Amino acid sequence: MDIPEKEYERVILGFDPGTNIMGYGVLGCNGSKTELVTLGIIHLSKLANHALKLQKIHERSLAIIDMYKPDEVALEEPFFGKNVQSMLKLGRAQGVAMAAALYRGIPIFEYGPKKIKQSITGNGNASKLQVASMLQNMLKFKDLPKYLDSTDAVAVALCHVFQSGNSLGGVKKQYSGWNAFIKENEKRLSNPKNKK
Amino acid sequence: MDIPEKEYERVILGFDPGTNIMGYGVLGCNGSKTELVTLGIIHLSKLANHALKLQKIHERSLAIIDMYKPDEVALEEPFFGKNVQSMLKLGRAQGVAMAAALYRGIPIFEYGPKKIKQSITGNGNASKLQVASMLQNMLKFKDLPKYLDSTDAVAVALCHVFQSGNSLGGVKKQYSGWNAFIKENEKRLSNPKNKK
Repeated sequence: MDIPEKEYERVILGFDPGTNIMGYGVLGCNGSKTELVTLGIIHLSKLANHALKLQKIHERSLAIIDMYKPDEVALEEPFFGKNVQSMLKLGRAQGVAMAAALYRGIPIFEYGPKKIKQSITGNGNASKLQVASMLQNMLKFKDLPKYLDSTDAVAVALCHVFQSGNSLGGVKKQYSGWNAFIKENEKRLSNPKNKK
Repeated sequence: MDIPEKEYERVILGFDPGTNIMGYGVLGCNGSKTELVTLGIIHLSKLANHALKLQKIHERSLAIIDMYKPDEVALEEPFFGKNVQSMLKLGRAQGVAMAAALYRGIPIFEYGPKKIKQSITGNGNASKLQVASMLQNMLKFKDLPKYLDSTDAVAVALCHVFQSGNSLGGVKKQYSGWNAFIKENEKRLSNPKNKK
């Protein structure tokens, strides 16, 4: 994790807690500017059982919160396409991550998947890669991460920034939607590996 | 909540976290004796939204843990008969309660509903009331509580005591099962209100 070098007026942490990979993304807002502070993932798939995963989610969530001191935490509501058993496990993973925020008295905001995609790309049905590419353009990060769980976490954080009506200036949100964006970035999107 | 008056060699906290009522029960073990320290519920149904429920579960779980200082926490695995949306909510409620234990470094143990009923009554298909009556007899508490969520929490705690092979002496577990128990308590069970 990068240690934040700057002070921000407002820090938003996005969490994407899953049972195999947990993504996180931190945005810093100063006046009308929003910057990406960091993004990353926590691997959980190699842990032998659910209890160990919860333990790691708990430790890492607290560590991230204590390092970046977010003012608000944003989470994505999961898609209800799973079976009840995996939904219970996912719910527990989320509950443990949410508890870290509750423990530090940080308010939690939740957004549905469509709302997030709509808010970032203008298209509620955009793919993960489309969301990631749009974020890359808006927040100016060089490479797309290997695991898009981290950009998903950035997406919910940025959705919260947009929804709470703060700090749009520094983020290029002048695209009228995904169509305008792909038009302008056709070459990049056809092969995401092109970028440097 | 009762403040524990005695010191115990080992304290077990049972949690039954739901989204409307959360039950808890605390057992204290000294040598071969197990006593009921306290049992109770936390009402969640009147809270306006899921976030407030999680907040209350979190606060109260931590408060209970900090008051009774359990050595181990035991939880019941939920029954998977619910829909995915309520399972997510239940999972989050459990995750938040589990995080309170994780935060204090207390190990968590989990038992399936059949295992718990079997362990308490000798019958894996016993009803909630049968489990509660058996516990009342074994742990010698006067009245059955209004909400059996609290006795459910005591049940998983006692199941953990039995499973971990400790402190059986003080608990009358000489019944060979539910059948022997009802035979001996026929009158009480036919009308649970009889008891004082």
